Amino acid sequence: MITISETQDKVFTNNDFQNVMLGRQSIRNFDKSVKIPHDEMVKMIEEATTAPSACNLQAWRFVVVDTPEGKEKLSTYFMKFNTPQVQTASAMVLLFGDTQAFKSYRALWNKAYENKQITKEKLEEVFNTFLPLYEHASRDMLVADSTVDTALVAMQFMLAARGHGYETNPIAGYDPKKAATTWGLDPERYVPVMAIAVGKPAPDDEGEVRSVRYPVEQVYEFH
Amino acid sequence: MITISETQDKVFTNNDFQNVMLGRQSIRNFDKSVKIPHDEMVKMIEEATTAPSACNLQAWRFVVVDTPEGKEKLSTYFMKFNTPQVQTASAMVLLFGDTQAFKSYRALWNKAYENKQITKEKLEEVFNTFLPLYEHASRDMLVADSTVDTALVAMQFMLAARGHGYETNPIAGYDPKKAATTWGLDPERYVPVMAIAVGKPAPDDEGEVRSVRYPVEQVYEFH
Repeated sequence: MITISETQDKVFTNNDFQNVMLGRQSIRNFDKSVKIPHDEMVKMIEEATTAPSACNLQAWRFVVVDTPEGKEKLSTYFMKFNTPQVQTASAMVLLFGDTQAFKSYRALWNKAYENKQITKEKLEEVFNTFLPLYEHASRDMLVADSTVDTALVAMQFMLAARGHGYETNPIAGYDPKKAATTWGLDPERYVPVMAIAVGKPAPDDEGEVRSVRYPVEQVYEFH
Repeated sequence: MITISETQDKVFTNNDFQNVMLGRQSIRNFDKSVKIPHDEMVKMIEEATTAPSACNLQAWRFVVVDTPEGKEKLSTYFMKFNTPQVQTASAMVLLFGDTQAFKSYRALWNKAYENKQITKEKLEEVFNTFLPLYEHASRDMLVADSTVDTALVAMQFMLAARGHGYETNPIAGYDPKKAATTWGLDPERYVPVMAIAVGKPAPDDEGEVRSVRYPVEQVYEFH
């Protein structure tokens, strides 16, 4: 069950939303001496998983790589272009969509009902309306849905990291065919969505050039 | 070019990151009397588009529906389950991945070079290394990449909306085959990723039951 909320004590060292969201930019050279404690990493993951997901399937999985042995494995299937981040980041967080998340669905909703968080009617609606959509879905739909869920949680993870005083770099440049098997995950079940380098900027890092965006007028229309 | 930053004057009415991110939950009954000014909607879109994207392709498109005529069109392809949100939200924001975003790529990077934001070497690296990957990509890859980009910007949009005092509900329940054509968009180019209802909760809205998450221990592993 979720244990964090907006009402508990201060959870972020940087709680300035404007700075967190609008100040985010990719960092490629991290301070190698920085270690992220596992309990803090887990906290960031937990905060990120407040993201919404289709039918609350939470079709995401985090693989956190922060050992020399783990990074050695990353170097076998990441593009050379991304070597600086892989080598210097405190951790590389690999995000996978879970195409079989729906199999845990009954247990999750039964628990919500037991905890009196939903009514019997809601429970039956979920089991009769939404669950069959997934149980009978094509693999393409399961891949697409879990990819969207995982990208949502990935965005929140990058922001949560900033809330904890870290910077990130989202990375898509690796061989997707090797992404799951390298970590002993079933590649039929787990589809790679992205990797995120996390850490503190190297003391001599000058920061990325702030990347250019299209004028906003080009990306919307009203109806 | 992007015109907002973390350093300018206050942009969010709610700037408490902990509240914005951890306090977000879906709202299904909105106050129908609330109108979101177009300039404020554009501001939220612009803030959201500070999200990262693969190779900075920004492969996203926003269609904002806030007229009775527009909502009538939505009702032709949205699941009945989502009728309350469609009918009561101040706006429905439809997010599409743009599978042809790479075609605008040369102009974007040339501009960055002209503005002296990147070096000639960086410009050539982009044109020789990344652009060909997209120019020769399969449609599946273009769909997958633009879907991830668009989910990232969607998550930021939901948080930006909270920063402006609004609530949201992300929606996947509609006929994807009709999503682009209903708005005169080329369905080969634009792939539907999600819709987001935006507005203020109805005065008598009791809020959604806070949705249950799996214990965090179930979603990660360390290597």
